[in-house]
Amino acid sequence: MLAKQRVRDARVGRLGTVTPDGRPHLVPVCFALREETVYTAVDAKPKSTLALRRLVNIEATPSASLLVDHYDELWTHLWWVRVDGSARVVRSGSESQRATDALKAKYPQYQTVDIPGSVIALETVAWVTWP
Amino acid sequence: MLAKQRVRDARVGRLGTVTPDGRPHLVPVCFALREETVYTAVDAKPKSTLALRRLVNIEATPSASLLVDHYDELWTHLWWVRVDGSARVVRSGSESQRATDALKAKYPQYQTVDIPGSVIALETVAWVTWP
Repeated sequence: MLAKQRVRDARVGRLGTVTPDGRPHLVPVCFALREETVYTAVDAKPKSTLALRRLVNIEATPSASLLVDHYDELWTHLWWVRVDGSARVVRSGSESQRATDALKAKYPQYQTVDIPGSVIALETVAWVTWP
Repeated sequence: MLAKQRVRDARVGRLGTVTPDGRPHLVPVCFALREETVYTAVDAKPKSTLALRRLVNIEATPSASLLVDHYDELWTHLWWVRVDGSARVVRSGSESQRATDALKAKYPQYQTVDIPGSVIALETVAWVTWP
């Protein structure tokens, strides 16, 4: 499936969640796709805290989306793929290990950047594609 | 302000809104910044309908965000800027004209791509920057 391939290959996606008071929250994320699950981690890139807004949000509202898009000045070449799904903080040690293995396999940067924080799993409910 | 300059210069942003049933909704958009207002239009790029989800969403929940980010394999070069604000559909003809003028000035593509649909204005409430 082309959409899945595009998501698998994308180096960055944008994660959308909803705050407890109902506002949208967007952040760019590195992620890895494993079958129908998107994994992203709270890594050691500079952050004010490891207790991030996105974690608070998905505890209150599991609905979340990952958007991958391609911009081109030739607008006939534009495309995007969105994974609408249900997010959760990974609690299991073995799943957390599989997720960080997948992230390290995709991003050589994770050989030097630690993953000290939580791993989020976004389970796909729908693939939405454009055009 | 560097953040404002980065948003002004970005060719694509991601607009986040909340659906009436409380789920996040993300879509890439072309946009123009005019002072503290982000304008984006429902243009003639292929769409299933001009009565788009994003319009329904902001009628129900005006809170919206525009995210602009830069990905680089050198993770020390990553940055993003987010405009958290309040969105509305532009009703005034003169504001709609100013918005489409700003879009056409930024994107030469709008000389051949029509803007048959609504214009959305996102009024900045907060600039959030990283790192």
